[in-house]
Amino acid sequence: MQETEAEFLKKYDRREYLAPLMTVDAAIFTFHGGKLLVLLTERCEHPEKGKWALPGGFVDEEKDASLEEAIQRKLQEKTGVKAPYIEQLISVGNNQRDARGWSVTVVYTALVALQSCQSFVDNVSDVRWEMYEEALKMDLAFDHIEIMKAARERLKQKALYSMVPAYALPEEFTLPELQHCLEVLIDKPIQKKSFRRRVEQADLMEEVGLRSADKKGRPSMAYRLKEGVKDFTFIRNLDA
Amino acid sequence: MQETEAEFLKKYDRREYLAPLMTVDAAIFTFHGGKLLVLLTERCEHPEKGKWALPGGFVDEEKDASLEEAIQRKLQEKTGVKAPYIEQLISVGNNQRDARGWSVTVVYTALVALQSCQSFVDNVSDVRWEMYEEALKMDLAFDHIEIMKAARERLKQKALYSMVPAYALPEEFTLPELQHCLEVLIDKPIQKKSFRRRVEQADLMEEVGLRSADKKGRPSMAYRLKEGVKDFTFIRNLDA
Repeated sequence: MQETEAEFLKKYDRREYLAPLMTVDAAIFTFHGGKLLVLLTERCEHPEKGKWALPGGFVDEEKDASLEEAIQRKLQEKTGVKAPYIEQLISVGNNQRDARGWSVTVVYTALVALQSCQSFVDNVSDVRWEMYEEALKMDLAFDHIEIMKAARERLKQKALYSMVPAYALPEEFTLPELQHCLEVLIDKPIQKKSFRRRVEQADLMEEVGLRSADKKGRPSMAYRLKEGVKDFTFIRNLDA
Repeated sequence: MQETEAEFLKKYDRREYLAPLMTVDAAIFTFHGGKLLVLLTERCEHPEKGKWALPGGFVDEEKDASLEEAIQRKLQEKTGVKAPYIEQLISVGNNQRDARGWSVTVVYTALVALQSCQSFVDNVSDVRWEMYEEALKMDLAFDHIEIMKAARERLKQKALYSMVPAYALPEEFTLPELQHCLEVLIDKPIQKKSFRRRVEQADLMEEVGLRSADKKGRPSMAYRLKEGVKDFTFIRNLDA
């Protein structure tokens, strides 16, 4: 008689099969002091102990119902970051990247406001925001340099057609602040005129009032994004 | 004394830890007879035995050095397809999708020419090209319906800004054939004039000679893509 699925499952024992190591990692960026920063954690266990790395770790089958839950839990535990949006970037899997054996990591990426997690980061020694340009020169653990570069490239592309830069700013911001953030994300200057035309035509923001005067004595208007427009995408990439 | 990394690795045994099930799957599309087709295989083992599914399977640590090698091997073994380009679409992992337990699949997608694998597919009973619209109504294994839909959406988006439709055609094709394929991929008619302007301005194709006359007695020019332009992307999405 043929075996039923129930009979098959009763006999099936995953421990009889060797599966690759399965981790989730995240490249989390923010914008602060005119610079792009990336979130790093110091590895406190072997392998690659003592090296800095993108935050992440193993899926915990008891705690995590999905990969998305796994990365949000790891981020919270290790860095205090709760990312309001997080997107899957890529999965990398091969027999070279981890000395423990065949290893797969599912990589996520997000842009967050510094304010959302600064108190946690300030209070632990094994988490820090590093300037992206400096992180590029570091000897990060595993293949995290390559993963970080891929995430930075995705962020650049995304900034060209979306409102993703607003995720890195406080809730209220001025147009020069938004423009500066966008310029850092795409790594190019933008003409003020074309920037203003673009954001005004899209009608994504509302005024929240004048800020007190800057050094030159001019007050500037503060804005916030309208409800539900954070996922807005422009039809055309920014000419940059 | 502190343990060194070498000592740690010597003691480390992956079999002591339970890792999620790790598979690769592929949504492979082609264009034939004016229709979008998707490649399906019949499951010959539990679980979900007898259901049709996207081709794929477990990573084999002995045979596969990377996820990319794993999916290409699985495609070759199961379907005879050798995809000239294959891209990673998404990874899906949770405790619901497979009755055997916590499971992750890394999903790839590609568009191929039917000619590239037809003889293999014709000779086995557990592989077939199914019309996409029909596959949507099938009870595919696992979460493969959702994965197939996500792959189809990516293909649509990609067709709007790239030359990916050419992957589905024979090496030599006419402009009406390319336009028809593109229309099926984006699921909308295109104006002949704007289609021609777009492909001509991009200068991606070269003439290979006149085809014999069609039913109306007019010969048509056959083209092929120039060397190295398959990865070309248009700056602007097609207005469709």
